[in-house]
Amino acid sequence: MRLKTYFPILDWGRRYNRQTLTSDLVAAVIVTIMLIPQSLAYALLAGLPPEVGLYASILPLIAYAIFGTSSALAVGPVAVVSLMTASAVGRVAAEGGVDYASAAIVLAMLSGLMLVGMGLFRLGFIANFLSHPVISGFITASGLIIAASQLGGLLGIRTEGHTLPDLVMSIFANIGAINGWTLAVGVVAVALLLWIRLDLKNWLGRFGVPKGVATIIVRAGPVLVVFLTMAWSAGMDLGAKGVALVGDVPQGLPMLSLRGFDLEIIRQLAVPALIISIVGFVESISVAQTLAAKRRERIAPSQELIGLGASNIAAAIGGGYPVTGGFARSVVNFDAGAATPAAGAFTAIGIALATLLLTPFLAILPKATLAATIVIAVLTLVDFSILKRAWTYSRADFAAVAITIVGTLMLGVEMGIALGVGTSILVFLYRSSVPHAAIVGQVPGTEHYRNVKRHKVETVPGVISIRVDESLYFANARYLEDLVLEQVADNPGTTDVVLMCSAVNAIDMSALESLEAIQQRLGDAGICLHLSEVKGPVMDKLEKTDLVSHLAGVHLSQHLAMLAIASSRPMNAPREGLDP
Amino acid sequence: MRLKTYFPILDWGRRYNRQTLTSDLVAAVIVTIMLIPQSLAYALLAGLPPEVGLYASILPLIAYAIFGTSSALAVGPVAVVSLMTASAVGRVAAEGGVDYASAAIVLAMLSGLMLVGMGLFRLGFIANFLSHPVISGFITASGLIIAASQLGGLLGIRTEGHTLPDLVMSIFANIGAINGWTLAVGVVAVALLLWIRLDLKNWLGRFGVPKGVATIIVRAGPVLVVFLTMAWSAGMDLGAKGVALVGDVPQGLPMLSLRGFDLEIIRQLAVPALIISIVGFVESISVAQTLAAKRRERIAPSQELIGLGASNIAAAIGGGYPVTGGFARSVVNFDAGAATPAAGAFTAIGIALATLLLTPFLAILPKATLAATIVIAVLTLVDFSILKRAWTYSRADFAAVAITIVGTLMLGVEMGIALGVGTSILVFLYRSSVPHAAIVGQVPGTEHYRNVKRHKVETVPGVISIRVDESLYFANARYLEDLVLEQVADNPGTTDVVLMCSAVNAIDMSALESLEAIQQRLGDAGICLHLSEVKGPVMDKLEKTDLVSHLAGVHLSQHLAMLAIASSRPMNAPREGLDP
Repeated sequence: MRLKTYFPILDWGRRYNRQTLTSDLVAAVIVTIMLIPQSLAYALLAGLPPEVGLYASILPLIAYAIFGTSSALAVGPVAVVSLMTASAVGRVAAEGGVDYASAAIVLAMLSGLMLVGMGLFRLGFIANFLSHPVISGFITASGLIIAASQLGGLLGIRTEGHTLPDLVMSIFANIGAINGWTLAVGVVAVALLLWIRLDLKNWLGRFGVPKGVATIIVRAGPVLVVFLTMAWSAGMDLGAKGVALVGDVPQGLPMLSLRGFDLEIIRQLAVPALIISIVGFVESISVAQTLAAKRRERIAPSQELIGLGASNIAAAIGGGYPVTGGFARSVVNFDAGAATPAAGAFTAIGIALATLLLTPFLAILPKATLAATIVIAVLTLVDFSILKRAWTYSRADFAAVAITIVGTLMLGVEMGIALGVGTSILVFLYRSSVPHAAIVGQVPGTEHYRNVKRHKVETVPGVISIRVDESLYFANARYLEDLVLEQVADNPGTTDVVLMCSAVNAIDMSALESLEAIQQRLGDAGICLHLSEVKGPVMDKLEKTDLVSHLAGVHLSQHLAMLAIASSRPMNAPREGLDP
Repeated sequence: MRLKTYFPILDWGRRYNRQTLTSDLVAAVIVTIMLIPQSLAYALLAGLPPEVGLYASILPLIAYAIFGTSSALAVGPVAVVSLMTASAVGRVAAEGGVDYASAAIVLAMLSGLMLVGMGLFRLGFIANFLSHPVISGFITASGLIIAASQLGGLLGIRTEGHTLPDLVMSIFANIGAINGWTLAVGVVAVALLLWIRLDLKNWLGRFGVPKGVATIIVRAGPVLVVFLTMAWSAGMDLGAKGVALVGDVPQGLPMLSLRGFDLEIIRQLAVPALIISIVGFVESISVAQTLAAKRRERIAPSQELIGLGASNIAAAIGGGYPVTGGFARSVVNFDAGAATPAAGAFTAIGIALATLLLTPFLAILPKATLAATIVIAVLTLVDFSILKRAWTYSRADFAAVAITIVGTLMLGVEMGIALGVGTSILVFLYRSSVPHAAIVGQVPGTEHYRNVKRHKVETVPGVISIRVDESLYFANARYLEDLVLEQVADNPGTTDVVLMCSAVNAIDMSALESLEAIQQRLGDAGICLHLSEVKGPVMDKLEKTDLVSHLAGVHLSQHLAMLAIASSRPMNAPREGLDP
């Protein structure tokens, strides 16, 4: 049982049969075709040689097949994580003077160990602090930075930097160095890829090609563009005309390598590795859950952390760089019928074969083709509608998105996401520190008590009933004190204050001490403090304290509180007579 | 009206009469007598010449009388802020090589400007993040550090450092240099002060001294000890015997001075100034509120920030160091009958006179006397019972206190308080990210729905009702998704899920998107999602979204939700027939 939790393969492996094998094989072929150009391109985006993308698409997929819980998740290099790798490794390699590829391997290893650690110690909740609006804003901004960074590849000029201003500046600085042939390859590749994505399916349909076949041809499109531009490059010797080609790459599979990890490098890469781990996990788990729900399957988030962690450790061992579950690829895998994580293992075999067979030809592939692949892929990431939706729904969420986008574009990926997370936490803390509170009165003829400002209700002279719509904790404890004392100061005839706690889910020690202070101060002024509608778990805690014995009463409902107060007063006493 | 808000003196000044004048004068005399030895001693604790303590007790009190809102608050040097000044200024003066006293003035100016800024921009809520347990732990730890730092003064040896280990180490390192005469003065002063505090009142009572007179004599006790040891010092020429004396101090009042502020010093002191501002404000506002409540008066927290800020700016101008409202002194001021802030201004005049008259004699005062004054004063700060109370009430609060105490003792005041605040925020965020949630069922024969684990309730097959006891926001949005999907996966026959939102005080955009995702995934599986008991403000926001139109229903109460689900089913249909 325990073993199956940590090795889900033991569970689905026993139910494996010819039918699931067929489904998985079909899905694997389609994903392999899709993954080849993407993995080459994303490695380039990460600042690594293209073949590293292939290496990162072999062992990690096998590791995920053993440890992962999603039947459809397709692990491998993805755009945003590649950009984050470029940002993190670029800085360390520039500052520390270490080998770029080694630093990427260290980053993958750190990220893998962190993910496994988070999985084993159930720390996955950390990922929850990356809110939806922040991640949406971050991905949009990342998409823009990626597109800008690939403009250089399309134009045949060098670009530098990991922020939008730096990239745009470096494009303008080198604009004179544009190579016409590179531009031609880039424009053709972008146009072809766009046409394939938008129109090819309908076009094939008009020629009577069955829908299933058309879909496969569309998915193979990017690979066709790769072959086409390779042929163009070979036929016209584009390399001699100044077009940047991929160049010679080491043939065959990489040796398993655990290079010497340097403590200083580890220290410098620790924070980026943590951010990459969390962003990668959030991206991956949401697609895995969406797909699993469609089949009424279940994803185990903690085990997913272990699965992704194992993938990244495998990426480090196999000479790759950080990987995670990709959105588009996983949807394709799902649609193609992947029935178990074995589909990923078969994809790995496909990529391994491609690595052995393709590498000799990669030398003549124009880099502009890969840049075009990236630009087309990240176009889907850029979605500014989140700004409009956030603005409509809540200014606080809008602030978090806007700060994330501007921060990421202007200051880079790590700073952008840190600012976004910081903003959303601060906004949340601020809001809960000034909670909604209402003076309540009785809805005539009922036992319901509602906000005096929203409803026609009746109040009893001398009694102030306050409902606070928030858990009471340190950040709003003083607010509560101010609120109660202000109400009492504004209503000189007050004899009783009732705090209605129906929306109070917790009371921490600061709030407890504030309640004691309120009780004390009201007591000094001869006013009774009551609580009503205290929840079970909250009451369990209060009963351990002295507060309850000092209160005038703790009442099951607001109505019972009002009845108790009424019965404690002399019958028909004049209002003035109630004052102490 | 506006003017009166910012200058409360315009309000109480108009009602000033002979009676309030008499009360204020009496209080001022008593507080002056108490303040003289304290201000000398605290300045020494802050690492400054003793006369700086007197300077910090003149202009700041006048500034507070103009801008402050508390009739009883006694502003001036206090123990904890003096320790924090020593820590902040000590580091900068050591590192930056600037004049120690100038740095203290810069610190007071920065702190004053920050407080005024917080008051003008209504940023006082920042202080709320200093929770009660954290401030209690911090004050206890500070008291211990202060006592340890004064041991050197009592023994006549040098101590160094601002953490407990450093202080203890330096005491042991210099233990051989103990001066017998200093030790004698120190022991006598401590014994006398203790006896005055604990026994003198009863003793005087036995001799028939009226209670009021006895109280005044007890309060004058520390001043008597100062005069006694000065006489001893002069009579036996203790200075020649190696006893550290205060030495020559500049006579007269300080010139108003605004020394050149250095940008680098400002940068280094900014964070300590912020922490000092917040700690000082929290200490001050709680005593001000406690005393105001006893007289049914009201404190305006924002104006208090401005009042304390003005005091600190005045302290900087007058050559002092950071000040705030002191607890013990304010209570004395209140008990002595201070009726308006004018009592503080009269105290300032008293201290100014004392500065003019006392300074010639201060030269022969043994420093051990002042160390004894501090040790006795801070003994009341040390209170470990907070640890026990926190442990009983909640482990989370205990963790925050323990980390604050250990952090302050081991790493210093700033690190200690930062760790405490960080811990309490993290604990709060963690808790709200894994909220209490319950599957609810109907209490038979009623319209109430309660936790199935706590009560005997009835559930309807195929319907899962979940109550989440927390506002839904980014940190628990994914938790909610997991919870719902897990429940559905565990109950294969489910047709309807009802989320009971009676304790949901807010839904942010992340939670909205999670609800949409839940709705989508349940919809894919043919399950209907309902909401019940959504609060007014929450519903106002949801109505702006598409979610509501995709839901199976939003019901006013949980019971209405169950009725609606029942009526949508075919009558007497077998359970299996309900599945889609």
